[in-house]
Amino acid sequence: MLPEWISVECAAPSETHREAALARQAQLTKPMGALGRLEEVAVALAALQASKTPGADRVPVVLFAGDHGIAARGVSAYPPEVTVQMLGNFAGGGAAISVLSRSLGCPLEVVDAGTLAVEPMRGVVVDKPRRGTRDFSVERALTPEEVAFACDVGHRAVERQAGHAPQLLIFGEMGIGNTTSAAAMAAALLSCAPADIVGSGTGLDAEGRAKKAKVIADALARHGLASDAPVAEVMEAVGGLEIIAMTGAIIAAAQRRWPVLVDGFIVSVAALVAVRLNPSCRPWLLFSHRSAERGHGMVLEALGARALIDLDLRLGEASGAATALPIIRLACALHNGMATFAEAAVSGRES
Amino acid sequence: MLPEWISVECAAPSETHREAALARQAQLTKPMGALGRLEEVAVALAALQASKTPGADRVPVVLFAGDHGIAARGVSAYPPEVTVQMLGNFAGGGAAISVLSRSLGCPLEVVDAGTLAVEPMRGVVVDKPRRGTRDFSVERALTPEEVAFACDVGHRAVERQAGHAPQLLIFGEMGIGNTTSAAAMAAALLSCAPADIVGSGTGLDAEGRAKKAKVIADALARHGLASDAPVAEVMEAVGGLEIIAMTGAIIAAAQRRWPVLVDGFIVSVAALVAVRLNPSCRPWLLFSHRSAERGHGMVLEALGARALIDLDLRLGEASGAATALPIIRLACALHNGMATFAEAAVSGRES
Repeated sequence: MLPEWISVECAAPSETHREAALARQAQLTKPMGALGRLEEVAVALAALQASKTPGADRVPVVLFAGDHGIAARGVSAYPPEVTVQMLGNFAGGGAAISVLSRSLGCPLEVVDAGTLAVEPMRGVVVDKPRRGTRDFSVERALTPEEVAFACDVGHRAVERQAGHAPQLLIFGEMGIGNTTSAAAMAAALLSCAPADIVGSGTGLDAEGRAKKAKVIADALARHGLASDAPVAEVMEAVGGLEIIAMTGAIIAAAQRRWPVLVDGFIVSVAALVAVRLNPSCRPWLLFSHRSAERGHGMVLEALGARALIDLDLRLGEASGAATALPIIRLACALHNGMATFAEAAVSGRES
Repeated sequence: MLPEWISVECAAPSETHREAALARQAQLTKPMGALGRLEEVAVALAALQASKTPGADRVPVVLFAGDHGIAARGVSAYPPEVTVQMLGNFAGGGAAISVLSRSLGCPLEVVDAGTLAVEPMRGVVVDKPRRGTRDFSVERALTPEEVAFACDVGHRAVERQAGHAPQLLIFGEMGIGNTTSAAAMAAALLSCAPADIVGSGTGLDAEGRAKKAKVIADALARHGLASDAPVAEVMEAVGGLEIIAMTGAIIAAAQRRWPVLVDGFIVSVAALVAVRLNPSCRPWLLFSHRSAERGHGMVLEALGARALIDLDLRLGEASGAATALPIIRLACALHNGMATFAEAAVSGRES
């Protein structure tokens, strides 16, 4: 019983603006195509923003945190209390995404979408149906109502950004155990072996990864998710509240015609779920980085996505998307600010 | 007869600061290594700057332009007059590097290190031994005195940046025909077949590339550069004034303990020449991007270098280095600004 808005069609990007942007790129004082992916990004944003002058100055970052019952099975290198401790660090300005968003001039909103925290915390929006998911090695992680609530959490977070007049949105996550939930969702949706998609998360060794893969394989079997399970089933059986909130946020943003810069493995899994639920959101997604987390390549491939940067990042917290943002800003500056051959009185190619 | 200063030893980076930076990275609120290459860059800069708080705020860009006699052989998709026209575009603010340096707050200096321009141009420093190189398909491109002069051009350009108190320097180039000169130098220094290193430059097709490779192979044979030629011989026979100026600039910067962020194919060839002439400059080089120009991978490999980004750029003008600069700035911001586990009261790894 997902919310009805989830399946509302997203508009298509503007073909008129894409063509105008391509025509402008051909006139700028550089060999055609010489700015490679910077040209592609500027053209894509022009089409998505339906603008002659694409921009990425106003880019709110929303960080969703959640806890995971599966963390009790020793699938992470860190104890579960770190999720709540990190909420304080995000809000206090000391976490990686705090530093990045400050450096980039991006407003940062931190949403407790399902952590174990009992007390409200200064600087954190609390919007959760329960404290943590259930341990999916013994029962379903979430009820259908909790899944629907989590989708709405993402929708509400997107609505709250309207005051920033976003040109692009970044979503990020934090939650001890959430690479396990994301890997389980991806394995179910892509019908692949958990061992092929499970990575080190916050730092497991080979033995830890093997254990994590077995926990996931057992859970998929227990919940009967081995192949072609409906997406809503996967979300209930092995999903995470912050992951599903991001799925909702991605669809809600695309429905508002706000492009989304997708972060690493976990956000990409949320995007995969979003695209399975509502394929019309796919054109609104730009992909920022390729994570060092093992399964990310498979998820990107399933989405037909090519990331901009590959810097061996595996932190989450939207850190990869934030790191790629300046490249998008420069792509826009070049598109908008370079002179044409005619303006600069520079000769073109010899015929 | 290269200038004597070329072989003056560069200092080693500070091991003390490298170790302190590594120790700090291990204390920051993230899993060890989770920020991948951002951690590496911050640690490298800390060692190079001998600083606890590495930074890349003050980064002058110096662009060297030159013309090439070999352009008469039809090795470029653009006519030679474009070099001088682009000088005006750089100074006028319409070129890619003009837009990038403005966006990044980097001072930009444009040096005519050997173009065909006769008249001085507003906003361009003229410092050249001659107008363009000779056509190396029929004679040596440069005399030993002209090579020495070009090295000094780079040295003088570096000295002029002192007022900016650089934390890092970026050098770039422009010159119709200069991928041909750079490919010839690289083929001679790496003893590889020109066909394996020749790329499209500003946009040659397969036929154009084959012709360019033949022009280079014939020239290397004519000048007897087939294998193990002395570096100074290679510079005289097939070098370019802007390329040699960058070689001089790289060595001069390293001698002043200023790290250099190397741009694409042509700057990497200048760096290869610099390292062959004075190996002690190698630790002072950071590598920004992997160009779409074919031979760049081989040159990077010969230098033992790994670039930060790979965005199919093939423009030159320091555009790749400028595009990578924000990543280095964010790496520094994270290193300097993140909280430690102790400061944020976050639990570490489970033992």
